[in-house]
Amino acid sequence: MTMKNIETLRWVGGTDGYLQLIDQTMLPVEFSEIECRNVETVWEAIKMLRVRGAPAIGIAAAYGVCIGLQTVAGHDETSLFKRLDEVADYLAGSRPTAVNLFWALDRMKARATELRGRVPAEIAEALLAEARAIHEEDRRTCRAIGRHGAELLSDGQGVLTHCNAGGLATAEYGTALAVLFAAAESGKKLHVYADETRPLMQGARLTTWELQQRGIDVTLVCDSAAAQVMREGRVQAVITGADRIAANGDVANKIGTYGLAISAAAHDIPFYVAAPVSTFDRSIATGEEIPIEQRDGREITHGFGRQTAPEGIDVYNPAFDVTPARLIAAIICEHGVIRPVTQERIDSRLRLRNGH
Amino acid sequence: MTMKNIETLRWVGGTDGYLQLIDQTMLPVEFSEIECRNVETVWEAIKMLRVRGAPAIGIAAAYGVCIGLQTVAGHDETSLFKRLDEVADYLAGSRPTAVNLFWALDRMKARATELRGRVPAEIAEALLAEARAIHEEDRRTCRAIGRHGAELLSDGQGVLTHCNAGGLATAEYGTALAVLFAAAESGKKLHVYADETRPLMQGARLTTWELQQRGIDVTLVCDSAAAQVMREGRVQAVITGADRIAANGDVANKIGTYGLAISAAAHDIPFYVAAPVSTFDRSIATGEEIPIEQRDGREITHGFGRQTAPEGIDVYNPAFDVTPARLIAAIICEHGVIRPVTQERIDSRLRLRNGH
Repeated sequence: MTMKNIETLRWVGGTDGYLQLIDQTMLPVEFSEIECRNVETVWEAIKMLRVRGAPAIGIAAAYGVCIGLQTVAGHDETSLFKRLDEVADYLAGSRPTAVNLFWALDRMKARATELRGRVPAEIAEALLAEARAIHEEDRRTCRAIGRHGAELLSDGQGVLTHCNAGGLATAEYGTALAVLFAAAESGKKLHVYADETRPLMQGARLTTWELQQRGIDVTLVCDSAAAQVMREGRVQAVITGADRIAANGDVANKIGTYGLAISAAAHDIPFYVAAPVSTFDRSIATGEEIPIEQRDGREITHGFGRQTAPEGIDVYNPAFDVTPARLIAAIICEHGVIRPVTQERIDSRLRLRNGH
Repeated sequence: MTMKNIETLRWVGGTDGYLQLIDQTMLPVEFSEIECRNVETVWEAIKMLRVRGAPAIGIAAAYGVCIGLQTVAGHDETSLFKRLDEVADYLAGSRPTAVNLFWALDRMKARATELRGRVPAEIAEALLAEARAIHEEDRRTCRAIGRHGAELLSDGQGVLTHCNAGGLATAEYGTALAVLFAAAESGKKLHVYADETRPLMQGARLTTWELQQRGIDVTLVCDSAAAQVMREGRVQAVITGADRIAANGDVANKIGTYGLAISAAAHDIPFYVAAPVSTFDRSIATGEEIPIEQRDGREITHGFGRQTAPEGIDVYNPAFDVTPARLIAAIICEHGVIRPVTQERIDSRLRLRNGH
C-alpha cells in the first residue's frame, strides 16, 4: 500500500451532497470507502465502528445531521426543526460513551437555533458550514495536540499505545498518534509498541497501519504483553486517546487502558492521555458516572471468522474502562499540557482559553 | 457436547503401544484425538500446543521417550542408551520454558541409568512403567493441589483465571482449575472469569469449556478487561498455573500473568499460583534467569483465519512473562500452601516432604 494522506471522512458536494468515509472494519487488508447518503447509513457506520474514535464520530454525526435534513429541504421551518431533533436523537443513540458525539450534535442544534427565522435552505447551508467547521477545527486541534505533546517525548524513546487514537480516529492526524507524528516530524526517533486491542483489533489493524504508512518503527504486541514490555525497559512512555474525560480528570477510554495505566505506574513510566477539549464532559464529576457501553459478546467469541469459545458461553464485553486521574501524568489538549491532572488545573486551562 | 471425564493423554497398549492425546488446537469447536506413534509426532504435538500445560507436556515427553525407544527394541544396551539420549535431547527442544518437560526427561533417563545391565526389553518395560507412574502421580498431585487450594476460596466468590491450568494442562484435573473444581465439589458456589488469553485463546477455548463441562459459572472476558473486572468488585481472588518457578518464588507463566498480578495488587486482591513441585526449578535463583520462549508472530497477525495486521509488520510475541514472588500471595502445591512466598518457605516446604 502506498503512502497516502489519510482522509478518514470527506463531504462530497454541497447541501445535497454525501459523506464518504473509510470503512475501517476492512483495514488493513482492504482499503475501501463507503458513501453515506442517508442518516441510517451514518448511524450504522458509527455503531459498527466503520468510523470510530471519539473526534471522528463527532464529525460524522455533524455531517449526519446535514444528511438527515436533506429529506426536509424545501419544507417549512417547523418541519426542519422537528426533523433536526429526530435526527440528533437518533444519531445520539449510536454509541453511548464518546462525548464528542453529543458535543457535535449539541453544537449543530445550537447553531440551528441561532438561525431561527431564516429560510430552511439557508439554515441547511449554514449547518453544512458548521459541520465543515467542526471538521476543520479538528484538523487544527490535532496538529496542536501533536505539537504540545511532542515536547514530552525524547529522541530514542520507546512508546506504548493502545487502540487507535490516530488519523483514522479524527479528521486526519490523530490525538495520541499526533504526538508521535509530531515528535517524529521534529526529528525524534521513536519506537512504538502497539497493543493489538481486543476484541476489535484497532491497534493491530489501524495503528500499525498508520505508523507503517508514516515510516515510524512499530512493533505489534498482544494487550497482555504490555506489562512485560514495560518490565523489559522497552518503553519510557505510554500514550492513549480518550473517549470522555470527567471534570476531575478521570478518563474513559478503550477497554484495557486502565490496566495499562496501573502497569505504567508500577514501572514508574508516565502515562499520558491526548484528547481535544471537546472530550471533556464537565457535567460529569468523576469517572464513576460515565456510562460504559456494553457490546455484543460475539465480538469476542466469533470475531475473526472462527469460533473461539464454546456455544452458549457467557461473555462480559465492556467497550471502555475508566482510568482515575491519579494514574495519569498529563492530559494533552489543543491548549497545552495539563499537569498534574486535577480538577483545578483542568478548570484553569480550559477557562483561560475560553477567555474568562 | 456431553459431560465427560477429560482424559488429556492416554497410553494405549504395552511397550509397542502409542500415545493418544486430545488435539487441543481443535477445541472447543471440535473434539478430536491424535495418535502419536513416533517421536516426531510427539515433538510436533508439544511444539504446536496440541498438548500444552506444563504437567501435560511432562507426561507427553515421558511417553515420547517410550515411543522413541521402540525403534531400538531388540538392539543392544549401547544402542538403547544412545537412542535414549537422542530422543531426550530432541524432545527437550520442543519448548524451552516448561521445566516439567526437562524434569520428566531427566527422570526417565535417571530411571534408565538405574537399570543399566538389564536386557533392553526389560529396560523399555520399566521405562513405560515410569512414564505411567509420572502420569498417575500427576493425577494424585492435582487432586492434592485442589484440596489444599480450595481452602483459600470462600462460598460466593468471584475468581479470575488466565490461560488454561485445567484438566487439559495435566493428566486430568488441573492445577489452578483443580482448586476451583475442589472448591465447587465441597459445595462452594463460585463465579469464574476466564481471560481469553491471546494469542492462542486457551482461556476462551479450553478453560471456559472445562468449566462449562463441570457446571461451574463462567464468564469470558478479554485479557484487557481484567483490571476493570477487578475494579468493579467482581472477583475476590486471582489464580493461575505456572510453567516454571525459580528458587525465590518468581513464577514464569503465560504472557499476561504478570500484568494480572500487578492489577490484583493494585486492588488488594490475592494472587495465587497453583503448581506441582515438579514446576520448581531450584537451579534457577530468580525469574530473571528463566528463558522465555519467543513464538511466531503469525500467531498474532494470522491467528483467526483472517489477517489482522498489515503485511510485514514487526511482532513481539513472548509466550511467557515472569511474576515476581512479592506479587504472589501464595503458591499452592501438592504438599500444601506456601505463604508468604519466600525462598525460605519454599525450601522448608519442599525439604519437609523430601524427608530431610
